[in-house]
Amino acid sequence: MVLCRWGDGMMSEITPPAAAGVTYARGFSAAGVHCGLKKTGRPDLAIIKSAGPAVCAGVFTTNVVVAAPVIWSREVVKRGVARTLVINSGNANACNGVKGWQDAVQMAELAGAATETPPEEVLVASTGVIGQPLPMDRVAQGIEMAKAQLTASASGGQAAAEAIMTTDTRPKTAALTVELAGGRVRIGGMAKGSGMIHPNMATMLAFITTDAAVEKDWLAAAWRETTNATFNMTSVDGDTSTNDMAIIMANGAAGTRVESHRDQEAMTAGLFTVCSALAEQIARDGEGATKLIKVKVTGAPGVEGARKIARSIATSNLVKTAIYGEDANWGRIFCAAGYAGVPFDPDKVDIYLNEVQVAAAGSALPFDEARAKAVLQGDEVLITVAMHQGEGEALAWTCDLTDDYIKINASYRT
Amino acid sequence: MVLCRWGDGMMSEITPPAAAGVTYARGFSAAGVHCGLKKTGRPDLAIIKSAGPAVCAGVFTTNVVVAAPVIWSREVVKRGVARTLVINSGNANACNGVKGWQDAVQMAELAGAATETPPEEVLVASTGVIGQPLPMDRVAQGIEMAKAQLTASASGGQAAAEAIMTTDTRPKTAALTVELAGGRVRIGGMAKGSGMIHPNMATMLAFITTDAAVEKDWLAAAWRETTNATFNMTSVDGDTSTNDMAIIMANGAAGTRVESHRDQEAMTAGLFTVCSALAEQIARDGEGATKLIKVKVTGAPGVEGARKIARSIATSNLVKTAIYGEDANWGRIFCAAGYAGVPFDPDKVDIYLNEVQVAAAGSALPFDEARAKAVLQGDEVLITVAMHQGEGEALAWTCDLTDDYIKINASYRT
Repeated sequence: MVLCRWGDGMMSEITPPAAAGVTYARGFSAAGVHCGLKKTGRPDLAIIKSAGPAVCAGVFTTNVVVAAPVIWSREVVKRGVARTLVINSGNANACNGVKGWQDAVQMAELAGAATETPPEEVLVASTGVIGQPLPMDRVAQGIEMAKAQLTASASGGQAAAEAIMTTDTRPKTAALTVELAGGRVRIGGMAKGSGMIHPNMATMLAFITTDAAVEKDWLAAAWRETTNATFNMTSVDGDTSTNDMAIIMANGAAGTRVESHRDQEAMTAGLFTVCSALAEQIARDGEGATKLIKVKVTGAPGVEGARKIARSIATSNLVKTAIYGEDANWGRIFCAAGYAGVPFDPDKVDIYLNEVQVAAAGSALPFDEARAKAVLQGDEVLITVAMHQGEGEALAWTCDLTDDYIKINASYRT
Repeated sequence: MVLCRWGDGMMSEITPPAAAGVTYARGFSAAGVHCGLKKTGRPDLAIIKSAGPAVCAGVFTTNVVVAAPVIWSREVVKRGVARTLVINSGNANACNGVKGWQDAVQMAELAGAATETPPEEVLVASTGVIGQPLPMDRVAQGIEMAKAQLTASASGGQAAAEAIMTTDTRPKTAALTVELAGGRVRIGGMAKGSGMIHPNMATMLAFITTDAAVEKDWLAAAWRETTNATFNMTSVDGDTSTNDMAIIMANGAAGTRVESHRDQEAMTAGLFTVCSALAEQIARDGEGATKLIKVKVTGAPGVEGARKIARSIATSNLVKTAIYGEDANWGRIFCAAGYAGVPFDPDKVDIYLNEVQVAAAGSALPFDEARAKAVLQGDEVLITVAMHQGEGEALAWTCDLTDDYIKINASYRT
């Protein structure tokens, strides 16, 4: 696998602009426009179009309350083939009753007509405020504008990534190349996050494209595995939205199939790397965040146990607030591990903040407060919980909880 | 049942000062003193003493990481008889290894010696910072001081309620009288809460006393039922502490037994009322809180479903922040109901903020924003989710999430 560059600057000999995102893979064009769904005048509608039919897979919110576009797109994913993806921001089209459903269907029809795709091959996504009707005249205008601007160049992927933002402060993209036996294939992607981000079920919008040719069933399994290890391990505030989805489209435009077991491994690693990069960008850009927090759990009784414990720590308001305050309050970390719902022996657990060990065998350790403080003053903190009672490992991404989170969310609607 | 007065002023013909708390019931004395565990000079050690052996019941944190005093007190509760309760604040005596355990045992021995009680009938509780050794010389001094100040008057209960506070801004007490067939009995109690308060397992410290004579098994069952409906329905920040416990001691000093089914019902109602009053005080005094939020769920599929949904809403950072911002963002309420893990039909759900209906049949309702705003400007907000699909009802207590929560918790240790 050859890594290309993304957000924070990982490099290799091949360095496409990461900003290309969904247009990095061949045979995909994209656009992002402003059609008036956001009062701010910022871009609020994106289209991604594959040159031909693409195999697709998706994971969706587990919320009982689901937005109309989620219901629509779940059906498209069940059939497993898509060519076009239309996304609006600024309005979630959730809790809008029959009109909401009709609007989602109409979005598929309009985007299908604009891209010469049958509506049943059009994926639809919405993000924004819940319970307000979607102004369909503006959506229709937006789709026409986006149609005129569709481009396979990096600028198309970039514009699309900007158009799906809500309270995000920057677009989130990643891209890389994977060496398969039959040649190189590309994977690119974009995501939006910021608030209402929580483990368990596609808890944000993420759209990945690849020009590899893949089997539908393999893709569905690989995608489930990838999202479980990445987007489902990302938490900003513990709320699981009504609209979340993570979609992958594979159009085969590279002319290279994922065939051997080695190919599958390389491709899975590529998907994991792209999605980790997006997950990390989402956590770093969490609403009001000043620090990225990574939580690593090792030596846990099983992978699922490790994930539960990592997520429990990553979701604790008290842990996140302590990191914001640059306070090495490891007791809160240990406490959050303890209520994860996973039985374990607390007397074997060591805890580290970056390289500074703060607890040993479940008890306080006299540590250098100045060193711990220096670690916590960085804009990225790694919490490691080494449990020494199994083989389970997991990594979770989150951010600190700050005054600005409160400010952003105290009056989101208005 | 005759209600007496507590915090917010419910009255009846019998009006003892609610502040009496644990000394309202006959045969209990209490004291609260400062022995140097808190740097602030505030009271930090309390003793409650029953004149004779009392039947006791308790529920404890479900955290895998449990403080030493919890381990000790669980054993006392298993035996079912206690006379003395010693509590310190300012230090949780959690994650202190073997020394922590030895200190908890020594606290029982010291308090037992001071009150002429065998150590195995002494309950021990601690609350405060995790992972710092308990300065036992100060604890010993504190126990001696408290011994000298034990009194059955209201001032004893009051002093004890003050001595168990950590970031609480005010002491929390409640008291009432229950009419049984054989005469009147009294129930009083005190609690501390503020942060690290979350549903499921005695998620705070609460100590209730009664002079009724009861059967051990009946008390254990009634106490489980009461805490499930009250303290376990109270959330401040979603974190379940290592130290939480809710204890009841019944010493029979009134000379009146709980015998008939009617007596049991009256007594259960009395326990529920005292504990609800304390739960509400805890939520209202949540760290940084400006508003008490009550979440009422009706018509849910079963009581457990209703409780899960009420707790999910009461725990949502986004809901709590919206109420702080006085923003009628009902979509967040609906969304939090949807991820509670309870299957339901969203299209039957109505949502109210006090008396203002904001959603009907799962969809937006044009409502008067000015009226909703006026409701949200109060210092108490009732969210009602009327589900119309069963008989399950539940009530949860929480508070808004504010800038001050962040400030309080960003540097708790320092």
